[in-house]
Amino acid sequence: MSALSDNASGTETTSDTAKAGAGRTIISVDAMGGDRGPAAVVAGISRSAKKNPDIGFILHGPREELKRLVARKRPLAGRVEIRNAEGVVSMDDKPSQVMRSGKSTSMWSAVECVRNKEADVCVSCGNTGALMMLSVVRLRKLPGVNRPAIAILWPSRNPQGFNIMLDVGADIRADEHDLLQYALMGASYARNGMGLDRPRIGLLNVGTEEHKGRAELKAAHDLMAKNAENSNFEFVGFVEGGDIPGEKADVIVTDGFTGNVALKTGEGTASLIGELLREAFKFTPLSRLAALLAYTSLRRLSKRIDPRRVNGGVFLGLNGTVVKSHGSSDATGVSAAVKLAYTLSQSGFSEKLAARVASAVQVQQDAETSGDVSGERDGPNT
Amino acid sequence: MSALSDNASGTETTSDTAKAGAGRTIISVDAMGGDRGPAAVVAGISRSAKKNPDIGFILHGPREELKRLVARKRPLAGRVEIRNAEGVVSMDDKPSQVMRSGKSTSMWSAVECVRNKEADVCVSCGNTGALMMLSVVRLRKLPGVNRPAIAILWPSRNPQGFNIMLDVGADIRADEHDLLQYALMGASYARNGMGLDRPRIGLLNVGTEEHKGRAELKAAHDLMAKNAENSNFEFVGFVEGGDIPGEKADVIVTDGFTGNVALKTGEGTASLIGELLREAFKFTPLSRLAALLAYTSLRRLSKRIDPRRVNGGVFLGLNGTVVKSHGSSDATGVSAAVKLAYTLSQSGFSEKLAARVASAVQVQQDAETSGDVSGERDGPNT
Repeated sequence: MSALSDNASGTETTSDTAKAGAGRTIISVDAMGGDRGPAAVVAGISRSAKKNPDIGFILHGPREELKRLVARKRPLAGRVEIRNAEGVVSMDDKPSQVMRSGKSTSMWSAVECVRNKEADVCVSCGNTGALMMLSVVRLRKLPGVNRPAIAILWPSRNPQGFNIMLDVGADIRADEHDLLQYALMGASYARNGMGLDRPRIGLLNVGTEEHKGRAELKAAHDLMAKNAENSNFEFVGFVEGGDIPGEKADVIVTDGFTGNVALKTGEGTASLIGELLREAFKFTPLSRLAALLAYTSLRRLSKRIDPRRVNGGVFLGLNGTVVKSHGSSDATGVSAAVKLAYTLSQSGFSEKLAARVASAVQVQQDAETSGDVSGERDGPNT
Repeated sequence: MSALSDNASGTETTSDTAKAGAGRTIISVDAMGGDRGPAAVVAGISRSAKKNPDIGFILHGPREELKRLVARKRPLAGRVEIRNAEGVVSMDDKPSQVMRSGKSTSMWSAVECVRNKEADVCVSCGNTGALMMLSVVRLRKLPGVNRPAIAILWPSRNPQGFNIMLDVGADIRADEHDLLQYALMGASYARNGMGLDRPRIGLLNVGTEEHKGRAELKAAHDLMAKNAENSNFEFVGFVEGGDIPGEKADVIVTDGFTGNVALKTGEGTASLIGELLREAFKFTPLSRLAALLAYTSLRRLSKRIDPRRVNGGVFLGLNGTVVKSHGSSDATGVSAAVKLAYTLSQSGFSEKLAARVASAVQVQQDAETSGDVSGERDGPNT
């Protein structure tokens, strides 16, 4: 018998994680919905399987198609359980529509595996809005979290090579309490995903002076300064756009609107420079020779800033962790997302984040009870 | 007698523009307040003078120091009038403080030349906040403009090589009417500064679907669509961060908070890539050889995206135009800012922008009178 689970029912499957598992860390992977189809996803998880013997997969999508793809990849033998799901969430589907009629989709099935604790972390290249809504509704928000956030990694001058920025688009609004939550969640991510003991948190603004910026930013500044000690992060105050790839902070906190614009601006700028660089090297025979000689140098550079290698927006603030891989992810991108999912799962990130948020909520409640903090916010458990 | 104006009084000077002028286009230049001091500014205007025989300068700062610097630059002979101003606005000065006690500063004096019509455009490398406040108070807003804006040029894939983005930090707030004004002003800038007949305007958002984003963005979307025809621009709808260096729009409209973050994120990303590129080329003897061979290619690239060459945030929406050059501008940067100031002055930009805004206000008023537009906004003349 093959290592693949091949019970024949629809989305209903026996949970035969032993096949993929055997002591391995299980990652739930949505095989569908990416721009490059399931072949890229299977190639990606195969790469991860080859590099890391401790990962097992539950793979969601049309069984027969996935069976064929998985059978071709030797590193996946005995490492993958397939869960049949015939439906696919497309990039154009409205999130609300997916909520109403998406039960048969691979995305739904992949998130469900986290909900029922078969996996700690799920990975999908699909429609971000739908994945976010599904994740919020099915996994539910952690107690004390008002708005979940999407955190991404950004190439930076810091020793760890990357900074974390959140929110980059889960929600277009954030008040000071949301921003404090983002700081707590970002710090937890930096500790568990990057191994930083005491991450430095910066709050994104249009200047570093304390009097600048919108009212909610000033309030968030004070809240973060007050909570830094208890929550085991260092608060470096306001930072500017130039600090996102800088070395002043490890975690950049902002609302989802600003974060999304910054992310896409940075990506767009990097991609324009890459194009212009390629053009520049094509210009003369001499420059084409130079490009040949520079090949490894340029490869080293492009590896360092390749967005596929920092692939994976992480949804934070839910009961379980969801890694959103780029829609256009190829095997390299999917493999990077799986690596991130593995690191987070290994470190027990979901539980630690939950505990961290809960303890901050407790501190806040105690302070409110003792009258130390003005009680204008929504109840922290709503 | 030297070509320099050398009357000895304080900020009070005879206005001997004939010396700098003689049919030339006069640019008012603040020699002080940049990080590199007046020598860089004088070197910059000297470069511009050499390239373009039609520019004359009124230069503001401590007379004796400027006299010495100008005397050393042959291209400036007979082209510069010096206005003595002993005070300097530093980067740390609060704008309000400059308003109260800044009359003796070179910045004040430089703006005053635009106010009294001796020059159409003024250039300063000084403190942005102080320059903005001074400009607003002394030049006053154009009738119908609620919030002035700072517009910058961004290297892009478009044939003209650059896109315009505004606001990048004049104000951290903008409602739909402000955003419409930005569209009008940006379109006018694109026509007069870039020679685009019918600029394409995009409104920055976190997605291109019409239902996405904040309420004021949806309202601005409708207002811009309605005004495009009359105001002679093409409205391309919502654009994303990745389109700022893209080819979808010539002008990107956003609020000053988002624009400032995007600008600094883009600059920071470009500068990180530049550093990594230099590091990559230093890595091995072979890559150092490659770097030598690639020298002209890389120079071509860096020239294309060199921020000094697109130097100059332009303050729009005032009676007169102010070009804010980077604080760290060297001669190349100052010369680029002067070139931009010259182009705008030559095209009669200040008057055309004023006319354009006035005509849009008229259309708006007519529409309101005829009941075509709901009258919720502030009176356009307040």
